[in-house]
Amino acid sequence: MVDSVFMAELSWPEYQAKIKAGAPVFLSLGATEQHGPHSPLGVDVYLPTAVCERVARQVGGLVAPTLPYGAKSKPRSGGGEAFPGTTSLDVLTLILVVRDIVRALGRDGVKKIIVVIGHFENGWPAVEGIDLAFRDLAREGFDDVKIMRLEYWDFVEPATHHRLYHPKMFPGTELEHASLIETSLMMLVRPDLVEIDKAPDDGPAQFPSYDIWPTPEGFAPRSGVLADARGSTAEKGGWLMDDHVALITAAVKAEFGL
Amino acid sequence: MVDSVFMAELSWPEYQAKIKAGAPVFLSLGATEQHGPHSPLGVDVYLPTAVCERVARQVGGLVAPTLPYGAKSKPRSGGGEAFPGTTSLDVLTLILVVRDIVRALGRDGVKKIIVVIGHFENGWPAVEGIDLAFRDLAREGFDDVKIMRLEYWDFVEPATHHRLYHPKMFPGTELEHASLIETSLMMLVRPDLVEIDKAPDDGPAQFPSYDIWPTPEGFAPRSGVLADARGSTAEKGGWLMDDHVALITAAVKAEFGL
Amino acid sequence: MVDSVFMAELSWPEYQAKIKAGAPVFLSLGATEQHGPHSPLGVDVYLPTAVCERVARQVGGLVAPTLPYGAKSKPRSGGGEAFPGTTSLDVLTLILVVRDIVRALGRDGVKKIIVVIGHFENGWPAVEGIDLAFRDLAREGFDDVKIMRLEYWDFVEPATHHRLYHPKMFPGTELEHASLIETSLMMLVRPDLVEIDKAPDDGPAQFPSYDIWPTPEGFAPRSGVLADARGSTAEKGGWLMDDHVALITAAVKAEFGL
Amino acid sequence: MVDSVFMAELSWPEYQAKIKAGAPVFLSLGATEQHGPHSPLGVDVYLPTAVCERVARQVGGLVAPTLPYGAKSKPRSGGGEAFPGTTSLDVLTLILVVRDIVRALGRDGVKKIIVVIGHFENGWPAVEGIDLAFRDLAREGFDDVKIMRLEYWDFVEPATHHRLYHPKMFPGTELEHASLIETSLMMLVRPDLVEIDKAPDDGPAQFPSYDIWPTPEGFAPRSGVLADARGSTAEKGGWLMDDHVALITAAVKAEFGL
Amino acid sequence: MVDSVFMAELSWPEYQAKIKAGAPVFLSLGATEQHGPHSPLGVDVYLPTAVCERVARQVGGLVAPTLPYGAKSKPRSGGGEAFPGTTSLDVLTLILVVRDIVRALGRDGVKKIIVVIGHFENGWPAVEGIDLAFRDLAREGFDDVKIMRLEYWDFVEPATHHRLYHPKMFPGTELEHASLIETSLMMLVRPDLVEIDKAPDDGPAQFPSYDIWPTPEGFAPRSGVLADARGSTAEKGGWLMDDHVALITAAVKAEFGL
Amino acid sequence: MVDSVFMAELSWPEYQAKIKAGAPVFLSLGATEQHGPHSPLGVDVYLPTAVCERVARQVGGLVAPTLPYGAKSKPRSGGGEAFPGTTSLDVLTLILVVRDIVRALGRDGVKKIIVVIGHFENGWPAVEGIDLAFRDLAREGFDDVKIMRLEYWDFVEPATHHRLYHPKMFPGTELEHASLIETSLMMLVRPDLVEIDKAPDDGPAQFPSYDIWPTPEGFAPRSGVLADARGSTAEKGGWLMDDHVALITAAVKAEFGL
Repeated sequence: MVDSVFMAELSWPEYQAKIKAGAPVFLSLGATEQHGPHSPLGVDVYLPTAVCERVARQVGGLVAPTLPYGAKSKPRSGGGEAFPGTTSLDVLTLILVVRDIVRALGRDGVKKIIVVIGHFENGWPAVEGIDLAFRDLAREGFDDVKIMRLEYWDFVEPATHHRLYHPKMFPGTELEHASLIETSLMMLVRPDLVEIDKAPDDGPAQFPSYDIWPTPEGFAPRSGVLADARGSTAEKGGWLMDDHVALITAAVKAEFGL
Repeated sequence: MVDSVFMAELSWPEYQAKIKAGAPVFLSLGATEQHGPHSPLGVDVYLPTAVCERVARQVGGLVAPTLPYGAKSKPRSGGGEAFPGTTSLDVLTLILVVRDIVRALGRDGVKKIIVVIGHFENGWPAVEGIDLAFRDLAREGFDDVKIMRLEYWDFVEPATHHRLYHPKMFPGTELEHASLIETSLMMLVRPDLVEIDKAPDDGPAQFPSYDIWPTPEGFAPRSGVLADARGSTAEKGGWLMDDHVALITAAVKAEFGL
Repeated sequence: MVDSVFMAELSWPEYQAKIKAGAPVFLSLGATEQHGPHSPLGVDVYLPTAVCERVARQVGGLVAPTLPYGAKSKPRSGGGEAFPGTTSLDVLTLILVVRDIVRALGRDGVKKIIVVIGHFENGWPAVEGIDLAFRDLAREGFDDVKIMRLEYWDFVEPATHHRLYHPKMFPGTELEHASLIETSLMMLVRPDLVEIDKAPDDGPAQFPSYDIWPTPEGFAPRSGVLADARGSTAEKGGWLMDDHVALITAAVKAEFGL
Repeated sequence: MVDSVFMAELSWPEYQAKIKAGAPVFLSLGATEQHGPHSPLGVDVYLPTAVCERVARQVGGLVAPTLPYGAKSKPRSGGGEAFPGTTSLDVLTLILVVRDIVRALGRDGVKKIIVVIGHFENGWPAVEGIDLAFRDLAREGFDDVKIMRLEYWDFVEPATHHRLYHPKMFPGTELEHASLIETSLMMLVRPDLVEIDKAPDDGPAQFPSYDIWPTPEGFAPRSGVLADARGSTAEKGGWLMDDHVALITAAVKAEFGL
Repeated sequence: MVDSVFMAELSWPEYQAKIKAGAPVFLSLGATEQHGPHSPLGVDVYLPTAVCERVARQVGGLVAPTLPYGAKSKPRSGGGEAFPGTTSLDVLTLILVVRDIVRALGRDGVKKIIVVIGHFENGWPAVEGIDLAFRDLAREGFDDVKIMRLEYWDFVEPATHHRLYHPKMFPGTELEHASLIETSLMMLVRPDLVEIDKAPDDGPAQFPSYDIWPTPEGFAPRSGVLADARGSTAEKGGWLMDDHVALITAAVKAEFGL
Repeated sequence: MVDSVFMAELSWPEYQAKIKAGAPVFLSLGATEQHGPHSPLGVDVYLPTAVCERVARQVGGLVAPTLPYGAKSKPRSGGGEAFPGTTSLDVLTLILVVRDIVRALGRDGVKKIIVVIGHFENGWPAVEGIDLAFRDLAREGFDDVKIMRLEYWDFVEPATHHRLYHPKMFPGTELEHASLIETSLMMLVRPDLVEIDKAPDDGPAQFPSYDIWPTPEGFAPRSGVLADARGSTAEKGGWLMDDHVALITAAVKAEFGL
């Protein structure tokens, strides 16, 4: 049998055997979105996939193919749709995609599903998509499916944040787009795709506490980097990854009795 | 600059530069679907991506992330949804996904889009999704976008089919699911994921010329392999791949004046 | 009691009596689409209705009203939407229509439903519409409904093709639009609506193995006839009709135990 | 050239010639719905089609294929969905169908469209469908399309109602389901499908001024006839038809300057 | 406990107690729509809410928040969307809103739901929305929910109409927009918002018996008042309100056994 | 002229005059949702409406009717749908509602629209609804509409938080459901609807950093109050209201040049 946590690499009998044995399935919801001049459009696919791969190994789980297109990027959290390369779905579409995939997993006998948000704007559509899938599964008699939904970046020890930032300097989750955290993780996971010397110095973004249509000129930094990416290292990425894997593994084990 | 044809590996300024220079963008529509006991669930992602990668190198193009979930598998062409691991979208959902991605590419300034079908059942939803995107782009003033849609397996020289099959033995495109052609291509592209000795002998499928709901017991072969996969080799995969790349390259160059 | 196989001609008690007695119901999905200068816009309604009428008489069935609007015509199979008179539905709309009608029949107690494709582009939307109806019926407890879906033109003896075409001259199902087969059948069914002397000689169409948006000038023949209609006769239509009726009757009887 | 007002009977060049000459197109929205034990399920198709045929001859118009499935029958106006044979669409579906057909006609160059309601419950969905089509056509630059929407039964001279009913006995449009007016018209148009001796005497319906879910037992008369059909004659049908044709013709001429 | 019939004014334990005790819930569907120069945009919210409040007191019921946006105003019944201030929903949207609210009430344990139409154009979308909710509730096992739907203005004694109008002068429900009935009711319910001296004399509207797109210049009176509002008084409003409350109360008690 | 900032209280000519003079329009998106045993289901309507009323007076604006139904309550931010009285819309429905209202305002000539979130879960659906409306308005030529979207609770001076909470005791926006802030504001705005002695002591909620389906028993506090409401006073509500009004007024004036 192929030794892989990636669902796509298994044959159907291998997959079936793991599901029957109670394997949880991780579904990452990524994006194709600008991440500054120093890191690639695929960040929101590479990172959650890497996290899920590591957690899946810890818990005997499987990693479903990561969805590589996500909800429209918003100016205050990802720079917005005007950046070249940012290629997104309408929210209604994403809700249906999440509903369909989760529902298909449930119909297939998967009892433990973990939906991992890899792109900020996917968070709420995922909630609704799961809600709709859960409702449909209940109507069809699949009433013992349990589903978890999480943002991987929420699983960090406070001490790690302190190691990464001077006190009070953490820009917050939304501004951490293409910045120190994501860049460090990318330098760990796909160092070949980061050119750290291209990290710009035009941030951090100064957003008001509201959205505005049409997006004003210069609303987001021209580079697309919302906070600062300079100082990113693979070592820092390792600190973060260790936390993500340890804390998500613990949560999954606790919730699913693994 | 990163030397990659994969859009996900480029930063947005690198992507923008290529688009401004007129690069065509290839979007493969794959699936997560059973492909027999000898090959993995990801066949319909690996193969069109591999074809697009090679063609893109020939024409200076880019490969957008392959959609890893496709339209529901039908019993006569993919074994159907009842196979474990087959994890699919409703047709309405897929139409919207294709509309959104193609529309987003068009809004981003891409003038040459090639949608490559990697999963039989994606063919018609892709047509409709492109139609809707094209209509929206026209309404928004993007009226110089040109879009091509193709099934990669249609691009084979007749002579190659003759080398692969005894006369009159070609089972047809629909039955070629997880069989000689797909398996040979997988042995070329991802030999680590094929266990050819597990290729079953329960085919070829004997389908009537109609569909039936509910799917009768034993309608598709239990293995999920519709024709025969035995005899597949990487060499044969190479013959096919050479044809796919040469013929699609020629068509793309002709249509887009490259 | 009115002696009719047409549902529309029966009163509701007459209909109810037939359904209670186990009558299968045939639903044709037609179109309003150009069929060349020599045959009318209604071909895709007249032909499947005529086939269903004859089969229904053989099996004690009923013919539901034929849907006279179908999925958008595509250039490679019907000339495309640009032809005057071609008046079509979006695919999403057609899917919902099929879902609704099939679901309504099922809720009404019909246990045997045969959906007959009368327009090439209706094939896949019908699959999805039936899938959705079947899912809904199951959720509502109607779990003994059986549904068949077929393209009537697939039910031809090879020998009949040989009588109609010189060896290797059969243009294929897609190109057989407004051509020898459809025209001959029309000359059998509605000879008053065919002007065979207007059959053009601008075919056969030379299509590439892909679709293209926007449709290039001259992509389809100007006449809308994809292969050749000359030589069509009612006699040939009779050969085809005999096959359609005999083979579909046999399949329906076999599947539904009639 | 075929001498027909029915669009389905014309070839596309014949259709194109008429449209270029300014022909208005009539689209009837019918239903498949119970109409009592004495008249057939197709009443709401036969009657508006017959009216449109006659009006079209007066104004040089064309009759598009009548939609044979309509919005769900409601207990107070058509007996409701529980009657066998009543086979209907969800309102959302019908709205999209009307949008698509009207939009397709408009895109094809038709400038004068008359949507004729042949089934009470189609009235409001048609309004919305036309609204959506009109909005889309405007967005696409088709800004000289004019659309009329009417219920054919509204076009009756008061004197004719007086000839048909004792004073104060007109049950009202809603209760006139499968009753004197529809039955008389059917005896004119399709006398072969009416069995007047089966007209029941269980009406008229006594409905409250509200709807109720679930429909109470015995809410509508068991026969499905809401008022009285006895006394229907083809002669009376003729009075009505004459009014419908004369008054609709006058209205169409006045609105479209014909 | 707060003594209020308004659901919004209760805490959840207070609400729960009333629902457990069998309280019916009234849901009004209003609009934001022009009502002439003499009365405010909120008429279709104020009036049904006032009716429901009074009926709820009679039957121990609760009044859910009135929906303040309704289906698009049509020229023949509300002047149409072109009037400033008329701010409406697409029909598809309203159907979903009604489905969702009714379904949420049903899931919450409400067994008696009365949907009250406060805006003419909401009538049919409400029927469909309730239909969809009822279907969903049945699928989810909530099979003892009973739902009533009514237009409040239908609940008037004939004698009251005779007091309000000279014989044969009642303009009919559709033309009674912003006219004598609605204005009198407003003078009862919110006299501070009526300026009766601004009631125009440009009516009554002279509509044809059909709709037309685009709406012709001068189709509706410029004031937006379809019949005559002059002569409105709070006293007349009182006659109407008394009827509405008495007759709806009686119907609700009869249907729900209160 | 009626002196009111509430759109519903104006006649259409009064509304038109204000819009022509450039008045901004505020649209609050509320909910019907449990807010503990001490405050009513309508909190998310009363509060944003009160804020908008006060801001509108400062900037010469109008307040459109507040939408009283919002997106489904989630356990971690509002206790979830299982609480009696929480009566919500699917996200897809809410998106369409927001799209329709904003689009209708834009078509009516409103150039300055401020969408105010009054219910946590409405935030993201509002973003998408505005996006869709903005796209439609652009397609229809309304290209000078400017739209702002804000959560009113984000507009607080840090000093005010310090007056309200001991350092480090602010539970965060999500947990501030039915707690000190909302309750204090309610005691200012609708003191008659608060019973502060019923404020429970079962909080604060201890949520994990993820969602889970089905919601575990005891996930949210039984009272529905996520943090602590005790100590709420109208005076504290006044501090908050003063901040909301001053800061939102300043932002609106700055963005719209008022």
